[in-house]
Amino acid sequence: MEDKRIIDLLLKNWNARIQQVTKSFDELSGWALRQEIVPGGNTVHYIIGHLLVVNDRLLEAMNLGQRKLTNLDPLFFDAEKKGQAYPPYEQLRQQWDENNQELNKLFKELSPERWLGKHAYVSTEDFEKEPDRNVLNILISRMLHLAHHGGQLALVKH
Amino acid sequence: MEDKRIIDLLLKNWNARIQQVTKSFDELSGWALRQEIVPGGNTVHYIIGHLLVVNDRLLEAMNLGQRKLTNLDPLFFDAEKKGQAYPPYEQLRQQWDENNQELNKLFKELSPERWLGKHAYVSTEDFEKEPDRNVLNILISRMLHLAHHGGQLALVKH
Repeated sequence: MEDKRIIDLLLKNWNARIQQVTKSFDELSGWALRQEIVPGGNTVHYIIGHLLVVNDRLLEAMNLGQRKLTNLDPLFFDAEKKGQAYPPYEQLRQQWDENNQELNKLFKELSPERWLGKHAYVSTEDFEKEPDRNVLNILISRMLHLAHHGGQLALVKH
Repeated sequence: MEDKRIIDLLLKNWNARIQQVTKSFDELSGWALRQEIVPGGNTVHYIIGHLLVVNDRLLEAMNLGQRKLTNLDPLFFDAEKKGQAYPPYEQLRQQWDENNQELNKLFKELSPERWLGKHAYVSTEDFEKEPDRNVLNILISRMLHLAHHGGQLALVKH
């Protein structure tokens, strides 16, 4: 089935992009966490937490189960407020791995029908009118979101 | 056909991302062209030219026809060399529009079979072993590339 083949291609790109930002996390974690990408802008620590929280929200957005890290929303889903204490990198990194393993397992089990079904943030009525608001579209938009912030992390000089 | 539906969803995301960076181009063109995103890093002008050249290369990569802007490769495909004179923004912006219109027209005509066929930079033998190296994968990776640099342009303060 070609639809399955295309979904698998998207998942392969998703995983490659996760690996790429994970590499950036590890390169920057030792020394650059408090660094702002540009003066007055987001810190590396915030971006790492932000990508974690957005990934955690996928469980909810894609109707895959209960999210686990709602407690991190005020720190990392809302815009960065300066001067806040963040959980240590090691904790975020572990949660990042756990979350990605869980997502991966769930993604593999999803049928093309479920991928093309409605996501959690659109009503049945609106989805009938706009069938592009599906689970696969969430994957695509979050993958672009990863690339957007990945491009910013890439600016931090080693 | 669900494969066609997913390809159309990707094209919709592609076009939305093109519009998003075009908006950034126009917001930054008046005053920020020479600005470096981070000290010593790429200028806004370079990134605009770079995205144009990468889009132009899609014609070749996707077996869609002859590329038109090979003359810009030394300026914008290679890494930025400081102190070079760039074509004016208005010219790049017009070429950007022309290129996007051409790509769009060609994308609409491509069959799912062609999308899943080999791209120009892989041999027939290698493609048999690695069927993911197809035209659609080029679209996905270039869309992520747009988001990567779009995230950088978003850092330039207005």
